[in-house]
Amino acid sequence: MNLIKRIMIPLGVTVIVLLGVQLGNLHDYAKAADSNQEFPKNEISKINTSQNNLTFVLIHGSWADVSFFDETAAALRKQGHTVYVPELPGHGVLNKDKNVTHEQITNAVVDYIKKKDLKNIVLLGHSFGGTVIMTVSQQTPDRIRRLVFFNAFVPLNGESLYDQLPPPIKETFGKLSQASGDGTILLPFPLFRDAFANTASLEEAKALYSKVKPEPARPLEQKLDLKKFYELQIPKSYLNLTEDTALPHGDYAWHPKQSSHLGFFRYIEGDGDHFTTVHTEPRMIAEKFVEAGRD
Amino acid sequence: MNLIKRIMIPLGVTVIVLLGVQLGNLHDYAKAADSNQEFPKNEISKINTSQNNLTFVLIHGSWADVSFFDETAAALRKQGHTVYVPELPGHGVLNKDKNVTHEQITNAVVDYIKKKDLKNIVLLGHSFGGTVIMTVSQQTPDRIRRLVFFNAFVPLNGESLYDQLPPPIKETFGKLSQASGDGTILLPFPLFRDAFANTASLEEAKALYSKVKPEPARPLEQKLDLKKFYELQIPKSYLNLTEDTALPHGDYAWHPKQSSHLGFFRYIEGDGDHFTTVHTEPRMIAEKFVEAGRD
Amino acid sequence: MNLIKRIMIPLGVTVIVLLGVQLGNLHDYAKAADSNQEFPKNEISKINTSQNNLTFVLIHGSWADVSFFDETAAALRKQGHTVYVPELPGHGVLNKDKNVTHEQITNAVVDYIKKKDLKNIVLLGHSFGGTVIMTVSQQTPDRIRRLVFFNAFVPLNGESLYDQLPPPIKETFGKLSQASGDGTILLPFPLFRDAFANTASLEEAKALYSKVKPEPARPLEQKLDLKKFYELQIPKSYLNLTEDTALPHGDYAWHPKQSSHLGFFRYIEGDGDHFTTVHTEPRMIAEKFVEAGRD
Repeated sequence: MNLIKRIMIPLGVTVIVLLGVQLGNLHDYAKAADSNQEFPKNEISKINTSQNNLTFVLIHGSWADVSFFDETAAALRKQGHTVYVPELPGHGVLNKDKNVTHEQITNAVVDYIKKKDLKNIVLLGHSFGGTVIMTVSQQTPDRIRRLVFFNAFVPLNGESLYDQLPPPIKETFGKLSQASGDGTILLPFPLFRDAFANTASLEEAKALYSKVKPEPARPLEQKLDLKKFYELQIPKSYLNLTEDTALPHGDYAWHPKQSSHLGFFRYIEGDGDHFTTVHTEPRMIAEKFVEAGRD
Repeated sequence: MNLIKRIMIPLGVTVIVLLGVQLGNLHDYAKAADSNQEFPKNEISKINTSQNNLTFVLIHGSWADVSFFDETAAALRKQGHTVYVPELPGHGVLNKDKNVTHEQITNAVVDYIKKKDLKNIVLLGHSFGGTVIMTVSQQTPDRIRRLVFFNAFVPLNGESLYDQLPPPIKETFGKLSQASGDGTILLPFPLFRDAFANTASLEEAKALYSKVKPEPARPLEQKLDLKKFYELQIPKSYLNLTEDTALPHGDYAWHPKQSSHLGFFRYIEGDGDHFTTVHTEPRMIAEKFVEAGRD
Repeated sequence: MNLIKRIMIPLGVTVIVLLGVQLGNLHDYAKAADSNQEFPKNEISKINTSQNNLTFVLIHGSWADVSFFDETAAALRKQGHTVYVPELPGHGVLNKDKNVTHEQITNAVVDYIKKKDLKNIVLLGHSFGGTVIMTVSQQTPDRIRRLVFFNAFVPLNGESLYDQLPPPIKETFGKLSQASGDGTILLPFPLFRDAFANTASLEEAKALYSKVKPEPARPLEQKLDLKKFYELQIPKSYLNLTEDTALPHGDYAWHPKQSSHLGFFRYIEGDGDHFTTVHTEPRMIAEKFVEAGRD
């Protein structure tokens, strides 16, 4: 009930922004609707339509690094888009610090965006990256045109990524990170192969797994202050690959469970799994990124 | 439980009709089965198989008019089918009367069918059109070969279309219609763009939106007497485009929530959203109409 | 909760087997993870990768016989795989015995596998065949490389196939088998056409139906001892065709309801229905069998 209520609130505000009308609650939908009936058609045409040159900032997830988006970024650039792929602290070549915090990751992305003075960004987060685009958007809302959640976690305010997991998986991850001695989690290969790379051949799965490094657990455990995010008026999309069972389908599914936390959003769907398809079908994935990311 | 029970009742009666056996309740399934074991193969071959010339009557939904089916009707005709697309009172060129009732819409379609003396119809309703094919079928059951619900509302007996909506959306629609002053609802563009035309480009979404007129709210609010519909033995299909989030996925989804009200039905699935795909992929949609509509 | 807990247990044991570490409970995941951090890359390469020559044993379901897999088996053989399709007692040419039991069916398949001395099998079961691969795997676990459930029933320990059905369907099947006088159930054509062959043309549906024989009900009613199955460490896949509504979508769906009984498994998805697609798109189905069946 609570979740569904949130559907209309961001929408309301989007309408407000578009119409330049001050609305504050559900009751004011009436005004929005009324205004809309005189909605000038040329207002719509003022909406930026240079959709052939989007500026993407792609945020990878856990057990990944910048190379996750190599093929897809190339496909997007070939189509005329501009693509930035920052590597998250604690991952890839920056993975020295096993004790990295969610704040440090957030700040690194914010700094990256500000340093390069990126504007009108389509900010896309995959998996754990969903939590990062939420916290980044709280710091640089004016630079973001649209947020795209790509089989991504969408914690509610005050929740952690762990809180999105089925309890036994949450518990297991906790034990794995305790056991590693250095606060990281390494995915066992059989889990990676069948839950993250289910559509891959064994050879592809092994190649993908050879790049997987231990993941710092702390940012997954941290409860996140997302109050501002849930008040922001940035349009949102959810891109769901239907064979992605990194979150098991059913009560804890990417869609419609995680996605429903967004309230109102654009839904885009494709075939594929959690780790394979970005590499094996980059052109299709690039098209889906554009469908999800454009105005 | 109640819904699931209905699965078997229409089926039972279909079996009866086919076998010419008088069955009245679940217990009589036994007879149906028994008869079936001597089911003469040549009985089956008597079933009309002229599936290359179906007669479609296509009923558009809210915020739409006859042009909704232009491309798909053309594709169906090219395949040899006969297609009729009546425009609903209160919509399109007939949209003068903002106070149109569900009865008036129903009667207009029934008159249209009788005047043209259409028989063996595949009667397809999209969205709000689902409620119309239900009430029309109550008046002209003998002219209808199969009912096709295309991402369509299927209210239970005594319910309205509004009763199918998540409560906050229902509430908002109510306020929008109150606020318009003339009992109509106009969809705000951001809602239309992301919930009805999510797979469209912005240009396509704007072009589609330019045709959207205020929708008379009354037929959406009216509680419908559907007692007879739920006793009819007309075969039914549900066609679901999986990216259609005009009804949010989850507890209130087109499928399997609205579709389950039908009890036993044929399920057909395709890619696409609520308003775009009929225009951008008419040949695919036409094929799905045939898959859903044929015997 | 209980189901989700099972997710991690087979996974744990798979990890154990792979790592050669003795683990017994969830707590020991810690050890698995720890070991994994030194996971030798060449261990992975020892995994059998001769995925171009899989040995499939395909188990058909109810109302079917060996011809169910004719086209798909041919497509698999063309790709270099070895395919065996035993016919179940009580079905096809072996369908004399209407009183066949689940044990007799199980034993026939076990005998077939042992007689031919088949090893490293990908054992795939369709529909009712899911219950058969479960009981067969209890008797010959060492010959099975992976179990594939193809829109298949997955009863919990002590349950029957009937226990997986929505209650009114279960009740109806019961009455149909009582009524037949010889303990069999024949599907009425309208049910078969719309629930089993929904994507078929009427001609295709009639052709498929002409092969349908009365199904012995006893193996569907029998409660199965599956205790050992749920302790086995054989990897599992679930292949789901998304238009298959032989089990209605929703609370009783093939996926994620039946599939969730497996705990941890590889999920593969395709387009198609319960009875048509194996015949009309055998190359696509063969590819899905390989995706589901390979290591």
